[in-house]
Amino acid sequence: MNSGSIMSSERDGEERLSEDELIARFFRPLAGEGAFGLRDDAARITPGDGMELVVTLDTLVAGVHFFPDDPAGAIGRKALGVNLSDLAAKGAVPRGFLLSTALPADIGARWLHDFASGLGDAACAFACPLLGGDTVKTPGPLTLSITAFGETPKGAMVHRFTAKPGDRLVVTGTIGDSALGLLLRTAPGASWTDSLGVEGRVFLTDRYLHPRPRLAAAEAVRRYASAAMDVSDGLAGDLAKMCRASGVSAEVDLALVPLSEPVRAAVAATATLLDRAVTGGDDYEILATVPDANLASFLRAVDAAGVRATVIGRIVEGDGLPVFRDDGVEKRYASGSYSHF
Amino acid sequence: MNSGSIMSSERDGEERLSEDELIARFFRPLAGEGAFGLRDDAARITPGDGMELVVTLDTLVAGVHFFPDDPAGAIGRKALGVNLSDLAAKGAVPRGFLLSTALPADIGARWLHDFASGLGDAACAFACPLLGGDTVKTPGPLTLSITAFGETPKGAMVHRFTAKPGDRLVVTGTIGDSALGLLLRTAPGASWTDSLGVEGRVFLTDRYLHPRPRLAAAEAVRRYASAAMDVSDGLAGDLAKMCRASGVSAEVDLALVPLSEPVRAAVAATATLLDRAVTGGDDYEILATVPDANLASFLRAVDAAGVRATVIGRIVEGDGLPVFRDDGVEKRYASGSYSHF
Repeated sequence: MNSGSIMSSERDGEERLSEDELIARFFRPLAGEGAFGLRDDAARITPGDGMELVVTLDTLVAGVHFFPDDPAGAIGRKALGVNLSDLAAKGAVPRGFLLSTALPADIGARWLHDFASGLGDAACAFACPLLGGDTVKTPGPLTLSITAFGETPKGAMVHRFTAKPGDRLVVTGTIGDSALGLLLRTAPGASWTDSLGVEGRVFLTDRYLHPRPRLAAAEAVRRYASAAMDVSDGLAGDLAKMCRASGVSAEVDLALVPLSEPVRAAVAATATLLDRAVTGGDDYEILATVPDANLASFLRAVDAAGVRATVIGRIVEGDGLPVFRDDGVEKRYASGSYSHF
Repeated sequence: MNSGSIMSSERDGEERLSEDELIARFFRPLAGEGAFGLRDDAARITPGDGMELVVTLDTLVAGVHFFPDDPAGAIGRKALGVNLSDLAAKGAVPRGFLLSTALPADIGARWLHDFASGLGDAACAFACPLLGGDTVKTPGPLTLSITAFGETPKGAMVHRFTAKPGDRLVVTGTIGDSALGLLLRTAPGASWTDSLGVEGRVFLTDRYLHPRPRLAAAEAVRRYASAAMDVSDGLAGDLAKMCRASGVSAEVDLALVPLSEPVRAAVAATATLLDRAVTGGDDYEILATVPDANLASFLRAVDAAGVRATVIGRIVEGDGLPVFRDDGVEKRYASGSYSHF
């Protein structure tokens, strides 16, 4: 791809690096088998015998999906993490990823070093090496796009459109931490924040900055779940998507939705924050539907993998929005998800 | 991926579409096997028996890689075309692609319709269906990133780092059309443009807008080339990259570099345009190195595929920049490629 046909490169200050030097210095150390040391313009990937590839792509834009002044390392970890979260929910084991970086002119070598370090930490932690990608410049905000590859046994990929009436709804981890972590950033003086100690603030901020893909639970999802997706656009919105795709509806007991201590404290201080927790997004937990017959095995397997899992409701027949029951009151969240227009 | 966590959606005027509606209306018609109708958040792809996957990623930013007011359909065709050009140079047959679109708020339904039409035309022409992707909003310029999948027999992917001294250098099509097509856009009143008739202008403009990936030549490349890459950053810059990656140098006879009639006329009017043609980029032709023993077979096979191929020089030992010989004068192009810093 011609990377500089219209806009000319202008940058003063830090040392100048060609695209090749930039790749060699920051990204080559992350390269795995099939990347050919990033010396080719394409990569190779082959699933193991009896396996198939699951591919997913997520794009992050500075100012939309993260703050431009977030630590570069955190941005790197998050960019890969949100993609691996998708793989986990499909029951897949990571195999590698491609990275697209559109860099504004004010991105320097120090930022790239830190970004690549964070990205490399995540790649190492989840055994998911860099296979290739593209580096271009942009007059706009930093834009990252990652294509992640995972594998499952043939035909074993878990879908989001296969939930069945009667299935139990299970969610990993806790919900709403990241949404409130974001609120801490955007409205730090709100009264509910008085209910948090330093530890609570650190916890919520960390949950926003550092998604932890639930890959440890992927095998249990693959073996026992009838459908699954990762929770990225908010529990309510993503459950609604799963229901629409599956032609079903759902009933959730709000009291069962797993909340961390800081979120409990926040909701105790300002009750409407429960809605924010359920619709806010960036949770990167797994939402799975599990047939009754598999439930005990699923919960045991997830627990053995060191991941918390909580039954929060049930899939039912119908095509309406999922119902969230709260102390006798029924709530329906019109949309927890993004609309472009 | 949470698509709206920081920035809220604001748009008046045209009808409003949710992300789901947008995908259903414009992108679902392009979906192929393994995309599950774009109803899942990941896709499946498995190479055929004895085959492996070749993956490549290219990112295009409005104002950098294309003009924001280029026809939406042309942008769609180009986005896929530049990726398929990479696959062709690796000797691969396309299997499908993932699409990332970061959309500014002024992109409306009409633009998306035209974009998807152009993209769909290319997907159809090259048997490369949409498998999935991500749609987000951006406060910056329209940014497109495509990950394309192709397949080759196991171990048959053609690399760019395997050129050997003695190999012949061959390039498909003609060089410089797109670079001069771009000049026609950015400096339409330059004196050399007087040398072009209407047909010449249309030809050069079309070559810039509509890359034609040389997939028809992919099998010949796979069977006979020792190394190959697509020419996207300019013949000189890309040849230099190939030489660096292979630990060799090259000698090119400038008089042999294939030029179209309009480019010949332009160079006759302004001799320095020859340098522009050789360094300008966006050619999307294949640059291949072919051992002498394979040359006749290669040229026959490419010709039988309906693609023009021209021998322009030879790979030699050394590690310097490739030498371009022009009527006794030796030129070395310091860099035809992009530098971020």
